[in-house]
Formats: sequence, C-alpha cells, structure tokens
Amino acid sequence: MADTATTPQLDTHSPEMNDLRMSDAAKPLYEHVKRFIAETVEPMSEEFYRLGEKKTDIWSYAPGQLETLEKAKDEAKKQGLWNFFLPDAETGEGLKNLDYAYIAAELGKNPLASESMNCSAPDTGNMEVLERVGTPAQKEQWLKPLLEGKIRSAFAMTEPAKASSDARNVSMTAVLDGDEWVINGEKYYISGAGDPRCKIMICMVQTNPDAPSHKQQSQILVPLPHPGVTIVDGMQVFGDYDAPHGHMHLLFEDVRVPKENMLLGEGRGFEISQLRLGPGRIHHCMRSLGSAEKALDLMIRRGLARDAFGQPLLKLGGNMEKVSRARIEIEAMRLMVLKAAKAMDVLGNKEARVWISMVKAMVPERVCQIIDEAIQMHGATGVSQWSPLSRMYASQRTLRLADGPDEVHHMVVSRAETRKYDGEPEDPALASVWRK
Amino acid sequence: MADTATTPQLDTHSPEMNDLRMSDAAKPLYEHVKRFIAETVEPMSEEFYRLGEKKTDIWSYAPGQLETLEKAKDEAKKQGLWNFFLPDAETGEGLKNLDYAYIAAELGKNPLASESMNCSAPDTGNMEVLERVGTPAQKEQWLKPLLEGKIRSAFAMTEPAKASSDARNVSMTAVLDGDEWVINGEKYYISGAGDPRCKIMICMVQTNPDAPSHKQQSQILVPLPHPGVTIVDGMQVFGDYDAPHGHMHLLFEDVRVPKENMLLGEGRGFEISQLRLGPGRIHHCMRSLGSAEKALDLMIRRGLARDAFGQPLLKLGGNMEKVSRARIEIEAMRLMVLKAAKAMDVLGNKEARVWISMVKAMVPERVCQIIDEAIQMHGATGVSQWSPLSRMYASQRTLRLADGPDEVHHMVVSRAETRKYDGEPEDPALASVWRK
Amino acid sequence: MADTATTPQLDTHSPEMNDLRMSDAAKPLYEHVKRFIAETVEPMSEEFYRLGEKKTDIWSYAPGQLETLEKAKDEAKKQGLWNFFLPDAETGEGLKNLDYAYIAAELGKNPLASESMNCSAPDTGNMEVLERVGTPAQKEQWLKPLLEGKIRSAFAMTEPAKASSDARNVSMTAVLDGDEWVINGEKYYISGAGDPRCKIMICMVQTNPDAPSHKQQSQILVPLPHPGVTIVDGMQVFGDYDAPHGHMHLLFEDVRVPKENMLLGEGRGFEISQLRLGPGRIHHCMRSLGSAEKALDLMIRRGLARDAFGQPLLKLGGNMEKVSRARIEIEAMRLMVLKAAKAMDVLGNKEARVWISMVKAMVPERVCQIIDEAIQMHGATGVSQWSPLSRMYASQRTLRLADGPDEVHHMVVSRAETRKYDGEPEDPALASVWRK
Amino acid sequence: MADTATTPQLDTHSPEMNDLRMSDAAKPLYEHVKRFIAETVEPMSEEFYRLGEKKTDIWSYAPGQLETLEKAKDEAKKQGLWNFFLPDAETGEGLKNLDYAYIAAELGKNPLASESMNCSAPDTGNMEVLERVGTPAQKEQWLKPLLEGKIRSAFAMTEPAKASSDARNVSMTAVLDGDEWVINGEKYYISGAGDPRCKIMICMVQTNPDAPSHKQQSQILVPLPHPGVTIVDGMQVFGDYDAPHGHMHLLFEDVRVPKENMLLGEGRGFEISQLRLGPGRIHHCMRSLGSAEKALDLMIRRGLARDAFGQPLLKLGGNMEKVSRARIEIEAMRLMVLKAAKAMDVLGNKEARVWISMVKAMVPERVCQIIDEAIQMHGATGVSQWSPLSRMYASQRTLRLADGPDEVHHMVVSRAETRKYDGEPEDPALASVWRK
Repeated sequence: MADTATTPQLDTHSPEMNDLRMSDAAKPLYEHVKRFIAETVEPMSEEFYRLGEKKTDIWSYAPGQLETLEKAKDEAKKQGLWNFFLPDAETGEGLKNLDYAYIAAELGKNPLASESMNCSAPDTGNMEVLERVGTPAQKEQWLKPLLEGKIRSAFAMTEPAKASSDARNVSMTAVLDGDEWVINGEKYYISGAGDPRCKIMICMVQTNPDAPSHKQQSQILVPLPHPGVTIVDGMQVFGDYDAPHGHMHLLFEDVRVPKENMLLGEGRGFEISQLRLGPGRIHHCMRSLGSAEKALDLMIRRGLARDAFGQPLLKLGGNMEKVSRARIEIEAMRLMVLKAAKAMDVLGNKEARVWISMVKAMVPERVCQIIDEAIQMHGATGVSQWSPLSRMYASQRTLRLADGPDEVHHMVVSRAETRKYDGEPEDPALASVWRK
Repeated sequence: MADTATTPQLDTHSPEMNDLRMSDAAKPLYEHVKRFIAETVEPMSEEFYRLGEKKTDIWSYAPGQLETLEKAKDEAKKQGLWNFFLPDAETGEGLKNLDYAYIAAELGKNPLASESMNCSAPDTGNMEVLERVGTPAQKEQWLKPLLEGKIRSAFAMTEPAKASSDARNVSMTAVLDGDEWVINGEKYYISGAGDPRCKIMICMVQTNPDAPSHKQQSQILVPLPHPGVTIVDGMQVFGDYDAPHGHMHLLFEDVRVPKENMLLGEGRGFEISQLRLGPGRIHHCMRSLGSAEKALDLMIRRGLARDAFGQPLLKLGGNMEKVSRARIEIEAMRLMVLKAAKAMDVLGNKEARVWISMVKAMVPERVCQIIDEAIQMHGATGVSQWSPLSRMYASQRTLRLADGPDEVHHMVVSRAETRKYDGEPEDPALASVWRK
Repeated sequence: MADTATTPQLDTHSPEMNDLRMSDAAKPLYEHVKRFIAETVEPMSEEFYRLGEKKTDIWSYAPGQLETLEKAKDEAKKQGLWNFFLPDAETGEGLKNLDYAYIAAELGKNPLASESMNCSAPDTGNMEVLERVGTPAQKEQWLKPLLEGKIRSAFAMTEPAKASSDARNVSMTAVLDGDEWVINGEKYYISGAGDPRCKIMICMVQTNPDAPSHKQQSQILVPLPHPGVTIVDGMQVFGDYDAPHGHMHLLFEDVRVPKENMLLGEGRGFEISQLRLGPGRIHHCMRSLGSAEKALDLMIRRGLARDAFGQPLLKLGGNMEKVSRARIEIEAMRLMVLKAAKAMDVLGNKEARVWISMVKAMVPERVCQIIDEAIQMHGATGVSQWSPLSRMYASQRTLRLADGPDEVHHMVVSRAETRKYDGEPEDPALASVWRK
Repeated sequence: MADTATTPQLDTHSPEMNDLRMSDAAKPLYEHVKRFIAETVEPMSEEFYRLGEKKTDIWSYAPGQLETLEKAKDEAKKQGLWNFFLPDAETGEGLKNLDYAYIAAELGKNPLASESMNCSAPDTGNMEVLERVGTPAQKEQWLKPLLEGKIRSAFAMTEPAKASSDARNVSMTAVLDGDEWVINGEKYYISGAGDPRCKIMICMVQTNPDAPSHKQQSQILVPLPHPGVTIVDGMQVFGDYDAPHGHMHLLFEDVRVPKENMLLGEGRGFEISQLRLGPGRIHHCMRSLGSAEKALDLMIRRGLARDAFGQPLLKLGGNMEKVSRARIEIEAMRLMVLKAAKAMDVLGNKEARVWISMVKAMVPERVCQIIDEAIQMHGATGVSQWSPLSRMYASQRTLRLADGPDEVHHMVVSRAETRKYDGEPEDPALASVWRK
C-alpha cells in the first residue's frame, strides 16, 4: 500500500479523471426523478405532514400518513423509479456514482423523495450488503421485503461508552452458545430504529477479541422487535428527536439470534463495512450542498427585504463579501463531490476513499458556516421556528460527527499524503472509517 | 462629539483605567453571594426542577415549584441579599459595575441564582428605569411589587416585521385618544412574557412619526394580562421554547392604556434606553465566560476519558492546541469584560459605550466557537440531551443577535475609531443600540 | 442584464459545463511542452542564473545571459512551441482556455519557461490586443517584433495617486495637440518596464473627462525609451526589486506620441480591457496552484526530516490536519480554475467573468495561507534565503492586490449573485476590473 | 508539579492579580523616558539613518553614525536613564515587569531608543545572566563594559541542523581538553553577531551527552572575534539582512576557550535559561502591540484618503468591521501582556511561564493579521518600499518562530490546562522554552 505507483491521488490528477458530466444514459432517469418529485412527491409530502400534525405519540405515524406515502411508492414502482440505487446483482453494474450524485442533489430537496423511490438510508446500504454477501435464506427473509419497500431497517454501529471514531473500539459482544449468538451491549444514535416499520437491524459486534484488531468484529442480523432489545430512548440532536424515524439508544441483553444470522463470516465486519462504502457519503454531501444553496438563497432574500441605517441589510458591512465567499465555496464543494463520485466510478470505492474523505471533511464544516451566516442575517428569526435555518444547522452540525468525524477524515487524507514520502502503511482502522 | 480630546478610548488607555480588582467593599457581598448560592440556591433549584418534571402545560409552573422558589427568595431577603443591583435612588450610588461583574460570574453558575436575589433580567433593567424616571404613582403601582419580588416584568422592543438592529425601525404605534394611548402593532422575542407572574411590560412605541428619527419613539407601560394583547406563540431558539419564561410573540390590537402610563415623556424613548445601558450587557458577557469555562472543562474531561487510535482523544491531532487557544481567549475576554465594567464606573455608561460594544461583539462569537469545539470532542453525545453543550450553544448563538447583533456593535467600535480621524458625528441610532 | 435566463452562473451549473478534461487535440502539445521544459528550459535556466550571479547592475543582464536565453527561444521556434497562446487572427480560434490551463501549470514550474516559448506576460496580453485591434502599421511596427520575440513590452494601468481598484480613477491625461497626443501623469508597478529589451508600452490614459465614467479612458502606445518618460525607481515587493524585469515607477512629462498611436479609438479603453480578459488571470491562478503544491511538498519533507519532543515535527499537534486541509484546498482550487477556463471557452470571456473573479478571489488568498503554514514548519529557515518560501509568499501576497484586489472580485461575484434577485444592472467599472 | 493547589493559572484568577496599573514609583521614569525619546532619541536617529545612507559595506557603520549614537548614550547616562532594566544585584529588586511593560511600549516606538539607554536585546538578557551567575572575573571582563555600553553581545542558541523548538536538540559540542573547552558546531540566526561592536557571545552547548536530557547542556562564554568562529553569512528575513546588527550564521571549528568561561557549571544550561526568562518576551509583545497600533493607524488613514466606487475605501465592504476587530484584538492583547507582566511580578518567572506563553502564542500571530489587512488596504503600495508595512510584517512573522514557535507555547498552555486534570508532570524541555 506504500507503493507510490498506486497511491490513489496521483492517478486522480490525470486529466481523464476530470470528466464530471452526467452520462447521457442517466439523463432520462435524472429528468424523470425531477418530474416525479414535482408531480407526485411534493403534493404527497404536503398531505403527509398535514396529517402528521394530529399525532399524539411522536414515535408513531398519524392515521392516514403511511397510506399516503404508500400510494406514492406504488406510483414510483409503476413508473420504474424504484431501487435504482442498487447495482445489478450479477454484473455489479448500476448507476454510476457520478450520475447518482447529480440525482442525489434532487432527492435532497424533499425529505420524502428518497423513501418514495425506496432509495433512502440506511436501507440502501443494508440492501446493498445483503445483496452482495447475504445467503439465499437471508435474502429471502430480509432483502426481499426491503426491496419491495414493505419493511425498513437500521444499522447499529456507534456505541455510547467508547470513542466510535476508532472502529476498533466496538465493544458489544456476540458469543456463540450452541446454535445461537448471544449479544450483549449498548448502541446509540441508531437512525431509523424508532420507526414502527423497522424490522431488521445489522449490528456490528465483537466476536473475536483475541484476533488482530481489525479482525475482531463481525456483522450480524438482529430482527426487530426483539425481547432482548430495549429502546432506552431516542437521542436528540439540538433538542430534536427526529421522530418517529429517530436516532435510538438501544440496550442488548442476552439477545439470542440464530447462528445463521452472521453475515459473511466471523471477523469479517470491517470487510463488509468496505462494501457499504458506496454512495452514502457522497449523497450526504450532495444534500449538504442543497442545504447550503437554500441557506444562501434565504440569506439574500432576507438581506434584500430588510432595511437598517438607510440600506438593505445585505449591503451593510461585510455582508456582500459573505455572499461571494458562500457562492465560491459552494461551487468548489460541488466540483469536489462530483470528482469524488467520479473517482469511485473509475478507481473503485477503496482507491477512492481519500477523495471521499476529502469531501466528507470539507463539506459539512463549510456548510455549517454558510448556514450560520444566513442565521445572522435573519436576526432572532434565524434561530426560531419561523425559519428552517436552525434545523438545517443542527443537521449539518451532526454530519460533522456522523460517518466518521471530520478529524478522522483529515487523518485519512493527511496520511495518504505523507505516505507518498514515508511509505508508512495505512492503519486498517482508518480504512474502516467507511462504516455506516 | 467629534472632539478628539473627549474620545472615550483615549481616556481608557490611561494606566489609571487598568485597576481591574474587585473593591474591598464588595468582597464580603461577593463571598456572601457565593455562600448563598451553594447553601440555598443549589438545593432549592434541584427541588424546583424535580417538581417541574411533572408539568403538563409547559407555559405554567408545576404545583410546589413557585413555593420552593419563594422560600429561597424570603431567605435572601432576610440575609440582605436582595435588589443589590439597584443604585441608591437619591445618590445614584450602588455596586460598582466592576464589582458586579465579578458577582455576575457567580450568579451565572445557577439559572435560578439571579431570581432568588431579585436580580434577574429583564426585571433589573425595568426596575432601574422606573426608579429613575417613574412618577410616584408608577412607582407605587409597579416598582414596589417588583422590588418586593411579587410580580415579574417584560420589555418589548423587537418587532418581527422590521430590522430591529436599527432602533429607528420601531413601527408599533401609540396614538393619543382622549385620556388614553391606543397601541397597535406586533412585538416578538419578548423574554419573560410567558411567565404567568409577568404583570407589567415596558413597550417601545412610535408616537411622533414626524419628529427627527431618534425623537419619534416613546416608552410606555402596558399591564398584563391585557384584553388587547394576544400571546400568539412563544418564539423558539433552536427548537426550544424556554418555557414558561418564554420569548413571546405578541399582537397588540387597540390596546388602551391611561395617558399617565407614558414614561418620562413623548419622544424620549431613546433617552430612556440610554438609562438601561447599565450592567446588562456586561452581565451577559460574564455569564458567557462562565459558559466558555464550562465547555472547556467538559471538552478536556471527555477528551481525556475516551481513547481512539491508542491515545486519549485530547492528545490526537490539533486538539491540545484547541485547549490552549480556548484558555487564551477566555482570559483575554475576561480582562476585556472587567475593563468595560471599569470604564462604566469611571467614565459613565455613555462614554463607556465603545468598550461595552467591544465586549459584546467579541465575547459571544468566540464562546460559540469554544462550545462548538467541545461538541466536536464529544462526538454524537455532544449534540444530544446527554450533554448541556447544544443548549449552551443555542443560548450563546442567540446572544450574537440579541441586544444589538455583532455587526451593529462592530459599527459602534469602528466608527469611534475613525471618528478620531474624520470627526464624523455619531449616528444617534447607533447610540441607542443600548436598548433592552 | 437582470434577465435570469442569461445570468452566467445558472448556465454554468448545467452538467455540460463539467467536462474539465484536456482535449485530445491539446495532448501532444501538452506533452511536448513538458518535454521541452525538461530537456531545454531547465538546463538553460541553470546556466542563466549562474551567469546572473556576476551582475553588477541589477537593472541589466550579465554577459551571456541573454544569449543563453535566445538559444532556447530559437530551439522552441524550431520545434513549433512558439506563440501558441495566440488565437488565429482570422478565425479567432486557438488553444482552448481549458487546455491552456493545464499547460500553464507546467509553464509555472520554471520561471523562464513562458518566455522561452514567447508566451510570457505582459507580452501575451499586449500581442493579443495588437492582433485584434491594431492597425496594419501598428502591427508591422510592434506586433511583428513581439511575435518574433525580438522585443518586450509593458502595460501601464496602475497609478500611485488613486485607488486603481476602481478603473474609473485613471488620472493620467492624454490631450491632443495637433497631430500628437501629449501625455502627463504617473504610473507605478509597471511590470517588465525595467527590462532593457522593453520597447513598447500600452498605456491607459484619460482622454475624455466629460464623457460617461466608463467612456473617459483610452489606450495608447508609447515607445520606450522615451525622452518624456522617466523611470523614477523600481517598486519593491517585500524588499525585492524583481530586477531587471522590475515593477517600475514611471513619470510622464509632456510625452508626445503620434496621433496614430491611439488604439481602437478615443474612449474605448475599457472595451480593449475586456479583450485582454483572456487567459491572464487563469494562468496566474494555475501558477499559484503550482506554488501551493511546492509549499506543501516542502512542508511535508521538512516536517518528516526534523524531530522534536521525540517525534517528527509533522506528527506534532495539528500539523497533519494542516496537510489535509492544504490538499483539500488545492484540489478544490484546481477544479475551480479548470471550470473557469471551461466557462471562458463555452460562454466567452464576458459571460465567464464571474467565474474568473471567483478563482481570482479564492486562489491567491488560500495559497498564501498554505505557504505561511509551510514557513511555520521550517522554523527560522522558512523566512530565510535558504528556502524559497518567503519569496513565494511575497509573490502570492502581491497577487491578492494585482489584477483587481480580492475585494473587487468579491464585489463582482456577490453582485452577480444578488442580481438574480434584484436585477440591479452591473457597474461598468466592475466589468472593467478585467484590466492588465 | 501536578499538585493542583500550586497550578499557576488558578492563582492568577484571583482578583488580586488584576491590578494592572503602573506603579506610582515608575511614573516619573516612564515620563522621563518618553521625554528623552522625543527630545534626544528622535533627532539623533534621524541623523543616524541619514548618515547611514552613505554606507558602502552593509556590515559596517558609516562614518559618524556611532559617534552620533554615543552622544545620545552619554546624555542618557547623565540623565540617569541607563541600565534601568537591571534588578539590583544584592536585593534582586528592580523595575517591576508591569512597569517595564508600559515603558517597553514607548521604547518600541523608535528602533534606537532601547540601545540609547543601554536596554537593548540581547544585551539585557546577557547582562542579567552575568550579573546573577557570573564569577567576579567574568563580571570584570564582560559585564562591566556591557553595563557601560562599550561593547555589545550575542546569545547563540538556535542551530540549523535540528529543530530548535525542542531545546534538547542542541548539538553543538563543548569538550574539555586540559584547561580549555573545545567547541565544534554550527549556530544560526544569532542576532547582533554582525555588529562590529559585538565582543562576547553566550553559547548554549552540549557538554554531557550521557546525562538526563535536560542536564546535557551548558552555557559558555566565547569572545568575538575568535579565530575558530567563522561568520558564514547573515540570515535574511524575507530578503532583508537587518545589517549590520544581523542574524548571523556561525561556524565553530575547534573553538578553544578557557575552562573558566563556563557559566554556573556543567549541565546547568537549562537552569540559566530560566533566569533569562525575565522581561524579554513581554517586551517583544509590547513592541508588537506598538506595531499593530501603527498598522491600524496606517490602514485608517489610507482607507479614508482613497476613494473607489464613490466612497472612501474604508467604507467599502467589510473594511470597517476589520477596523473594529483590530481595535478589539489590540485592547485584548494589551491587557493580556500587562497581566502576564503582573504574573511575573507576583508569582515569579517560573510560575508565570504559562501566562508568558499565552501572550507569546497570542500576540505575534494576530498582529501579523492586522498588518496584513493594513497591507490589503494600501493596494500595491502596501508591499512596497513606500510603506513600512511589509517590513513590519516580516518582523512580526519572524517573531512567531523566534523564542519558541507558536506551537511550543500552545503546548505549554494546553499542558498546564490538562495538568489540572491528569496531573501529568511538565516536560522539562518545555520548561526551558524560556531560552533566548
């Protein structure tokens, strides 16, 4: 891995890597998705949220909500806008990451768009894993209903008691007892586990404490609800539960699952994480860009609409320069995300990991700043429920911690850079930052 | 005002301004306050919040809560720790701002400490205004119960429809109709107006639209509840209502109050604002420092307690430098706040306004950064309900907008600086940033 | 111009704008240039600088220096690597800006590379202007020897007495007196006017003080040396004269030139500036990226080579994160420069101006930071003559002021952004930031 | 050292530490120094630099220069303004650091002020060391002429081949051979060693390679010129030699000095460094503040004097906010420097080291930023010889590397902070950052 000749960055500097256009093949799908969002998802989501106002238990759906959503899903299925995230099981071929990046920017504009087309996290990653490494029985039982949009799923990686930025810190144990694995431990920030439709969870567990540090972990299927799994609470993000999806805190006490629920094999947890790599981070970052565009738009509108000291707020002090810097940052980030997607297409997920870390370390941090400046332009309204900005901020701020905190991605990037000089081999724990 | 000889900064560079010690006279009070917080306020507030958990209506108090608080207030009154914020009515003498700054740092450590000693905002500012400019009848009716801690009060300045950073933008009107003022308009972020005990509100209104821009406004007393005043909603801060205190959105429809409710006289609203100047901003900033200290403490504890990649998190990457920079910032801010307090004592509120703007522009912005770094060190826990950090962040972030946004304070400071060169007179609207 | 449909940014968001590959046609030239630099320019420049050490007068060349350079130029001409910056006079066709951007990155690696192939500033811009708007006589007299590399040229725009960031501030006058223009005024930072081979200068002058502000200026040819033109001194950059090229301070006293020396016509000075737009800024920024890459390389080598407190410097504190941030910035800037070049190719210089301003405002500022961090890693050696870093810093720092300071480019970008909302027409003085 | 009770910061938070006034006793001296600079030093230095223009060899003084300087020194001696930096040999009493800090701000306003009153670095530190640890013979031979201002001196610590930020890296060796120490090695950035009047140098050498790492170094006197000491060259700072004072690169080849030239004793080099601690860093930082004030003054003057786009430059974009931020930073830094000086007075140099590191890490970095913004306001003139700014920048930039680079001071501060939690003892190499 220290061999300079194969260092990923060098290859990606070649002019060939710089064709960042959407492919001709993807354009009809891209246009179709945009149309579907405008014509079907948007009216549906208005209805969905209107119905939701009548909820009494935040951890459930209001009457009619799910029916509304299901109708849109049926329509998407009918129109062929379904599971398009998934590469062909035989050939591995699917939508290019670069093409998906353009589409993700559209999906990001409505919070129900992805789910309407069965392309929402964490189901996408879970389906991809099951597709690639699942046994026929696992596929029949879990992948099939997931692909049909009948159930939802979760992925349990982060733990409250240890620094999860180092994947070797996983401490929830699974011990084989006869024909069953017995799981004990605690997980938190398990997104989607609050949804009553969530029926299956992939859990990262420690099975081989005496193996080399990156061979100690395994991934295992735990059906939900399960008598041994207690939902302790939802974890809030800046005071918000994001219910009923939720980011749940789960306690595992003697959770027994059949031996066959192990994925791929003992000690291969990191290996599976690498499969998940896929488009997840890129999509997050494309959606972050949508958030930054929205913030800049709100900032300019507000700054032009309000006057103080005889001028629109926007023309006072350094505000116009803030607009310029935001625009420059957004364009730079967009190109970086597209290039990272291209790198995945050309080099594969593993070789492209440095590019993915670059955008993951770059994008949410700067989008937070742009949103923060938009808040400042709004005065007190900016932090209130009258504006989406404080919620957008909370979401981007959290992204700097999720899927590997900024610091770990900077480690990946800087070590790739110095490896060109000192040839020091990569830390396998860093390679597995690609979890979730 | 353009006369260089009296430019405030120059005077404050004199070595004499640099005695930032607490006075000997204040030390016993300072020690007494600390003791009272430890012995009385802390056990009381535990009980208070425990009782509060049983609330069903967020805009009320739970049974027993107020009784608990009142007992502590009685004790404070008995010990002479009561209304010590207030200068003597005759002599104007009272606690020095510098001394109060040290005490404020202690008051800031418990959210009920100020109220327990009848020193909490916005009552303090309201009482000071009534003391200085109230008529005997106004004092009898409103100041007396406020001084006794029997009722609470609010101050209504900010409006949703205009940029309130420019005080001339006040658009709520009061028109004289016979013996009554008739008030129409809208206010929002009116802190404390959600408390059922809030009985009186000082409102900034426009009475003289044809006068010069800084003589159009007046301040007027509106008793609460009032048939014409509708509480539309509470304004949230990053999703939080801060109930029952609240930051209320109020609608005024033909609100009639007696002619005598006018304070000081028509068109003198800005003048009264200057009276309010007092210690308000300094206290905010001292409390912000307490928040920064707390964040740094949490950051170090977490960073030492968690390991990743074979080391405590705190020792990874640039984390230790973040600790150093936070410590340096905190010490620099502390000295600046003390110096601004000293400037108020020596030069008076008006001459010290540039110093106050300096600390108001400096402190909350940097404290936000320190809290943000502490959040990052905590991983996902940092944004959750398991840590006070996201709430602390929301509070400091809001302070960058309240009492004059950062940008306006930077205008005050930079214009004072350039006035030394170009002698351009001060914008009266900037002088009145001192509202609230 | 307020018509959203033609706002440049919107068009450049289309996926079609994102093909940032070098064209197949340019690849052989690109490879040829790289080979020529390695085989011819590099050995030549070593000889050139070795000879230069014997100079006694900094404003001249040492014996043999120019002969050495001429030999390389002859070789370039022979190999067809000559004037390739220049579009075809008839068709306007030439090297695409995008292709040139890739080549510029190579040219930037050796300070004599551009001149060896007759592609160095400010000659390129001057030749392009003469080619497009020169009369046959002007072309014969000045363009021909420039194209042959026999003489060099300068462009005189910036003045010491006024803020040249606003192009309307040009105050050097040219008054028609019979058949001659009589020029009076002062210019400074006239790059290349110190070179003894500099024989012609294009000067921006004010000819029509009563015309609308952007029609007052003209461009006029002044041959050098000229009895009325005094070289007052060279302007230093962080103490360095950059001799003999120089950045000269020139005094014009009754400088008489024939009426025919006017370019294009009276009052058309801004119009010509738009022609110059061309690749100049893009090349600067590509070279800046080369500088950033060099700084990062030096930073890593030094940081790995030196130990303190038991570790390589690079592994201490936040140094590795600095490496990561530098790498991310460099890649983001590279893509932005390529996209700006592409925008010029697709939309034309005028429509692409916002993109050009984006990179001009973005690149030198960040490259300064990267170099600064490399200096810090070197300790005292970083600011000394033992390292190229302090000189690189001075050069990039100057670029933040030249060709429109950062602030003006941010104005261009932010106004383009807000124009989408308020339709305010563009300030023609901003459109002409494109000077030099 | 891990005992929380004696952790320096805690003590310095006490209100008693916050009396930052100049003492009454120092005021007459302070006023006298100001008068002497105005009446004697300023006219003298004009003459001095005028004479200097005739120099042919940069490493010498022009005829008349030294005579002019000596006359001012005689006058200072006569007026009793001489060696006032030096504590009384018997009592250790002298000017308080806090008082000296105020005076240093005045000394910093003229580059010859310190030397005129025999208070210039590095002589001050060298005299203090000789006074405290010198033998009677050493005092007679070197301290006496230094105290009389007859000779000058240097201090040789930094080496080119190793990271000198870690004081344990000193690699120049001194080996005892009979009655003589034989010194071999290389030093660079030896300030003042270019002055023809420099006759004595204190050198940090390694004498005991097998001792614990902080007991290996010694300090030894080397008279200059010396046959074994070659001045290889002066080290430039951003292209400037600062001649004839200079920052010299020295080669030591079998430099023999008598055994008695050892200071204090073998292996006690770090211990002596702690003595040097004294006011050096504080003075640097006070002078830096003078530089920041000067830059802000230049920035405002230029910004008001030049117009662009119809307004003074200063009123465009975010420029006024830059003024405000600079003013706030300057005041915060001033208070921090005064507090660090006070800490030295009250706690002693060793206990105050954390405060000194705080200001050393804080001040030069921010002053660089302020100067940089002033440069930007000046356009191209800002980097030229027409403005002092580029030289001021170079000087402050260098200060971020000298006397311990920023990073090391941040290590001192952050470790003091975390030591309150983990009790980890201080690294003795960090304690000795206090060299030079």
